[in-house]
Amino acid sequence: MDESVGGGGAASAAISSGIEDSANGAVAEEEEQVVTPWEVAGKDGGKIDYDRLIVQFGCEKVSKNSIDRVERLTGRPAHYFLRRGVFFAHREFDKILDACEKGEKFYLYTGRGPSSDALHLGHLVPFMFNKYLQDAFKVPLVIQLTDDEKSMWKDISIERSQYLARENAKDIIACGFDVSRTFIFSDFDYVGGEFYKNMVRIAKCVTLNQVRGIFGFSGEDSIGKVGFPPVQAAPSFPTSFPHLFGQRKDLRCLIACAIDQDPYFRMTRDVAPRIGYLKPGLLYSSFFPALQGDSGKMSASDTSTAIYVTDTPEEIKTKINRYAFSGGGDTVENHRKYGANLEIDIPVKYLSFFLDDDVELENIKKEYGAGRMLTGQVKQRLVEVLTALVVRHQKARARVTEEMVDAFMAVRPLPNMFG
Amino acid sequence: MDESVGGGGAASAAISSGIEDSANGAVAEEEEQVVTPWEVAGKDGGKIDYDRLIVQFGCEKVSKNSIDRVERLTGRPAHYFLRRGVFFAHREFDKILDACEKGEKFYLYTGRGPSSDALHLGHLVPFMFNKYLQDAFKVPLVIQLTDDEKSMWKDISIERSQYLARENAKDIIACGFDVSRTFIFSDFDYVGGEFYKNMVRIAKCVTLNQVRGIFGFSGEDSIGKVGFPPVQAAPSFPTSFPHLFGQRKDLRCLIACAIDQDPYFRMTRDVAPRIGYLKPGLLYSSFFPALQGDSGKMSASDTSTAIYVTDTPEEIKTKINRYAFSGGGDTVENHRKYGANLEIDIPVKYLSFFLDDDVELENIKKEYGAGRMLTGQVKQRLVEVLTALVVRHQKARARVTEEMVDAFMAVRPLPNMFG
Repeated sequence: MDESVGGGGAASAAISSGIEDSANGAVAEEEEQVVTPWEVAGKDGGKIDYDRLIVQFGCEKVSKNSIDRVERLTGRPAHYFLRRGVFFAHREFDKILDACEKGEKFYLYTGRGPSSDALHLGHLVPFMFNKYLQDAFKVPLVIQLTDDEKSMWKDISIERSQYLARENAKDIIACGFDVSRTFIFSDFDYVGGEFYKNMVRIAKCVTLNQVRGIFGFSGEDSIGKVGFPPVQAAPSFPTSFPHLFGQRKDLRCLIACAIDQDPYFRMTRDVAPRIGYLKPGLLYSSFFPALQGDSGKMSASDTSTAIYVTDTPEEIKTKINRYAFSGGGDTVENHRKYGANLEIDIPVKYLSFFLDDDVELENIKKEYGAGRMLTGQVKQRLVEVLTALVVRHQKARARVTEEMVDAFMAVRPLPNMFG
Repeated sequence: MDESVGGGGAASAAISSGIEDSANGAVAEEEEQVVTPWEVAGKDGGKIDYDRLIVQFGCEKVSKNSIDRVERLTGRPAHYFLRRGVFFAHREFDKILDACEKGEKFYLYTGRGPSSDALHLGHLVPFMFNKYLQDAFKVPLVIQLTDDEKSMWKDISIERSQYLARENAKDIIACGFDVSRTFIFSDFDYVGGEFYKNMVRIAKCVTLNQVRGIFGFSGEDSIGKVGFPPVQAAPSFPTSFPHLFGQRKDLRCLIACAIDQDPYFRMTRDVAPRIGYLKPGLLYSSFFPALQGDSGKMSASDTSTAIYVTDTPEEIKTKINRYAFSGGGDTVENHRKYGANLEIDIPVKYLSFFLDDDVELENIKKEYGAGRMLTGQVKQRLVEVLTALVVRHQKARARVTEEMVDAFMAVRPLPNMFG
């Protein structure tokens, strides 16, 4: 998997595909927004229209009813990522909930393409959410580090890619996962055996024309890229992990990740019943925006576009005060008079992702939107929230030892899997 | 790898490719003969023109000088497959011999796509030859069973394909390989680790356009097929076998197989220097003909087209007498007068592959060609030779135990590797 906001991949993808339960093809006339694992671009350089994306991709909006069911089933409040619509879209999440209601279990799958940059805050979103899901539902989680993908898409050696996978694993572990319920693996370490068999089963069912349609590969792309989608699809099927699930084919899989990964899982869901597996359920998040605003991109080469988990408090403060795009008035007078435009305001958007106090967040929105609170005050609160988050992360990461990484990545049964 | 004469693959391939040291493209005007791993067809349904194929593929004829060098280096007569031109073409075989003269070693690699049929005699050719090479040069041999390929190209399950791989391994072992110098592996068992890393390194270097040119894949082919060539290429590089060669990148590889596999190894040789490996050397055999004649195909569905290693003496006798295409005269009188056409005579061709007595073979050719020996007599001698061969094979195969298969397929160092 790639960053939540796409990296530098060359593929320019048509979003509609020949695959079942994907988008309708009728939108091809005008220039559409483009969302693939390697490219995220709003229409005419503007913002991503998420309602439109749901229609394009053919998935569904997460409903209030589903969130209520989550709360009933887990006996705790739903994560604010659900309540606030950060995870806003899904595919057959309700089937997962149906299964839970019948007392059945499922497993979680998410992943990360280890990149050469430090993780930015957007990268933490799926891991924070998966930790919540794991704790709330008491289910196992598999985390794929696609070091093979990164070595093929980027100009980095296999050794470097494996090193980065291990470094990224430390950041993931620092998010607080329970080692007795979590299996982290690097593709270069783990591909083989039953996992490879599932790759072959999947690859046999998908034509070249289909992946060209889904992912936009061109004739100049390497066969490594063309052959990669089955690697990301395979963890959706429980038999890819015989040390966890034996030969169980009936165990459901729930994948929570950013919506740019949908092309992989449209393909996966299309293939699943043809090779005797259940379709995975999906929960999709929106993209975490760049400091410069919703249509900007977080860039590896321009560190001013994002807050990294390695930033110092001083850097966080400077970046937010200097770069965080404000929806406030251009003068204090205008701000007091017209209030802030919350739709485009990055400090408020960042607070929606990371301030877990609903009451305070609503209050800030109300006061700031009415012009009673100033941009500087909102930014100051954001600096506090993010500094606390980053410092906490850095402390947790410093406690992650090589032995702990080995423990999470060991191919082993998970003793407390559904406990 | 596939059978020496292609199976039922759908790909219709152009022979020229965009890859270095391959064919010139100037022949595309007229309808060329087609030789790919999945299709072998002479021009206008006629015989394969091997001299033409050497030009098309851009490889070289095995020279008398090379054969003399082999004899000097090994201190024994060259195998009659070399002397009689069964292995007739090569790529940089001389570099292997140069290395030997400097006291350097190399390793052998060959393979087989486990098919649902019993092996026919043509299948034995590369294994008989590799056994000779292994004994003569005292070098290790790796044998790849591409059960993954077969499960993708044919409509068989992974389980069935793995079963066939193991059954085929028994026939291979029955050819007399030395377990202390031979590693047999199935892709489904072995792909992973360093082997997978080499697959990724290779796949990263080859574009979709290139494999379409080399192998003739179409948009309707699966991405499993499109992604397969690196699996067959990877054993050409010694680091794919860390238990044998550690991290040695400088060890040369010699591949002896039928010439329909050249597309894979053209690609492999093109990639090799770009990822820091030596190009493998190649020795290519011509195709073993069907009983019905040179332009016929041995067919899995029509058992009358080939002699199988499972045939009874009675079946062998019946098939040869009934189906083996004769170049003899249409009447005894004409035969006595004009002699036999040895160019198209299948009994003589089969004897060239399996009668190891040069003097007798030459005598048969002389007498039969002059019309003094009759077709029936030649066929009778062929029945004797093949019956002895098949009975010997069946006895040897009956002695192959499951434990022996396990021993050959164990991932282990080879104690007597260069001994």
